[in-house]
Amino acid sequence: MSLISVGTMAFDAIETPFGKTDRIIGGSATYVAYAASHFVQPVKQISIVGNDFPESEMEDLRSRGVHLDGVDVRTDKKSFFWSGKYHNDMNSRDTLVTDLNVLADFDPHIPDGYQGAEFLMLGNIMPTLQLNVIQELKQRPKLIVLDTMNFWMNTAMNDLKIVLRYVDLLLVNDEEARQLSGEYSLVKAAKAILQMGPKYLIIKKGEHGALLFHGDQVFYSAALPLEEVYDPTGAGDTFAGGFIGYLAKTGDISFENMKRAIIVGSAMASFCVEKFGPTRLKEINQADIENRIRQFKDLVNFDIELA
Amino acid sequence: MSLISVGTMAFDAIETPFGKTDRIIGGSATYVAYAASHFVQPVKQISIVGNDFPESEMEDLRSRGVHLDGVDVRTDKKSFFWSGKYHNDMNSRDTLVTDLNVLADFDPHIPDGYQGAEFLMLGNIMPTLQLNVIQELKQRPKLIVLDTMNFWMNTAMNDLKIVLRYVDLLLVNDEEARQLSGEYSLVKAAKAILQMGPKYLIIKKGEHGALLFHGDQVFYSAALPLEEVYDPTGAGDTFAGGFIGYLAKTGDISFENMKRAIIVGSAMASFCVEKFGPTRLKEINQADIENRIRQFKDLVNFDIELA
Repeated sequence: MSLISVGTMAFDAIETPFGKTDRIIGGSATYVAYAASHFVQPVKQISIVGNDFPESEMEDLRSRGVHLDGVDVRTDKKSFFWSGKYHNDMNSRDTLVTDLNVLADFDPHIPDGYQGAEFLMLGNIMPTLQLNVIQELKQRPKLIVLDTMNFWMNTAMNDLKIVLRYVDLLLVNDEEARQLSGEYSLVKAAKAILQMGPKYLIIKKGEHGALLFHGDQVFYSAALPLEEVYDPTGAGDTFAGGFIGYLAKTGDISFENMKRAIIVGSAMASFCVEKFGPTRLKEINQADIENRIRQFKDLVNFDIELA
Repeated sequence: MSLISVGTMAFDAIETPFGKTDRIIGGSATYVAYAASHFVQPVKQISIVGNDFPESEMEDLRSRGVHLDGVDVRTDKKSFFWSGKYHNDMNSRDTLVTDLNVLADFDPHIPDGYQGAEFLMLGNIMPTLQLNVIQELKQRPKLIVLDTMNFWMNTAMNDLKIVLRYVDLLLVNDEEARQLSGEYSLVKAAKAILQMGPKYLIIKKGEHGALLFHGDQVFYSAALPLEEVYDPTGAGDTFAGGFIGYLAKTGDISFENMKRAIIVGSAMASFCVEKFGPTRLKEINQADIENRIRQFKDLVNFDIELA
């Protein structure tokens, strides 16, 4: 089944305790595309880039079945640029530079050829733009997943709450779940958020894994304990791409299959952090992914006889 | 198979965001005994109490198959007392009062009737006392588990490193694993610690679960997401008691069975935090425990077809 992914394609400059990069390829929709295209093609991309975004990267994406008709290329401006520095624990970071550039003009629209897609991934952009995309679709997708962040809770909470009514699954981290719900306990936060529109909620906890809530059901996916985390940038987007890519491949949005999809997303995220930028996502193949999923099975599955 | 448990029996006064207690029953060996005795009896207790430790509590313990021959009752002094206040996130706390009282005289010895036990749980006490206990045993147990804390790393690191050579499994939290190893990455920390003596390492991560390391194998047990955590005091000791109690019941110390034991320990800890002190551990029965373990299975187990 086909997948539309909306989000940023950008440059990042990253500093971590393990090293430093100059401008490298980044952006939420870039990570989603590289992760999801391992499972489903085409990925119908909607984004905006400037005159500096390399044609070679566009070609890489095309070669992986990523359709770029929905990517607005602005020849008069530069691409969105973000620069950040991670602290020693890799769980927190400081933003050094945010140059919106073309992102200030981002006005996503659905190309005719994209209509009819069964899966929609709305990356972390302004909530009103996310809503516009949903409203342009002639046929409601089987599953709409929305990512957002604390920035929009601070600046556009009302708009965010409106778009939440239209989506099936919300992806946030633990702090964002607390801010959105006003509840410290993640179980209480989940109950509150599931009243706001989404029927499913994923709370990402970084190195501590992710939780999926649906009605009274809950599933916990561990993160693989890694010796080194070189660069956490894009791990959340890679998780999202693996998750929705697997769902789109299988076409099954049951809770049981979402469990599998979360494990797949976690496996993809565990590759992402092994090198700077999306590098590892381009190197790996199906066998690598299957081996990594097997590691997750060994990591968490257990059997115990009960009366 | 029988189990010796060495540690404190004490009073705690606890303040959490959910309430406040005056002196209630506490102590690492108390929690271990209440947890382990759901799985194995007798639990052969070694501890020290003062003239204020209630006979009714001793009777409660006896009725659960806890042998108290190794509990030194000092009629001239008071029991160990600790008072603490948890912060809003429940992951950190301030110690308000530490009255050692009888604990200053604690000199644990193995009563003759305790000899021959196959399992030994060394609670968090001074490393030289832990070593004395090991050296008094005429027959080496099948499994020696040691708990410790940052206090001993700061004040008695050399003694701690000596006792580590004699134990099979070390239980610490994430910060303690980092301090002991000098490594930030828990995977690297585990590798370093497994060179110090223990063949198994459990790293407790509180609400984020626990990791078991052995050679190149790793297992991750989630913590059950709870609506309310009333009082985290004793959760780590309860985890330890459930873990070693299950191992002693089954007599099987394979890695596969340790996975089950960690789930059992996590289930017991999830009960412990539901009320102040060891209250919940006294209320629950086998059916409650089995239901809780079933929740853990539903929480983390998944099945995915691989090529």
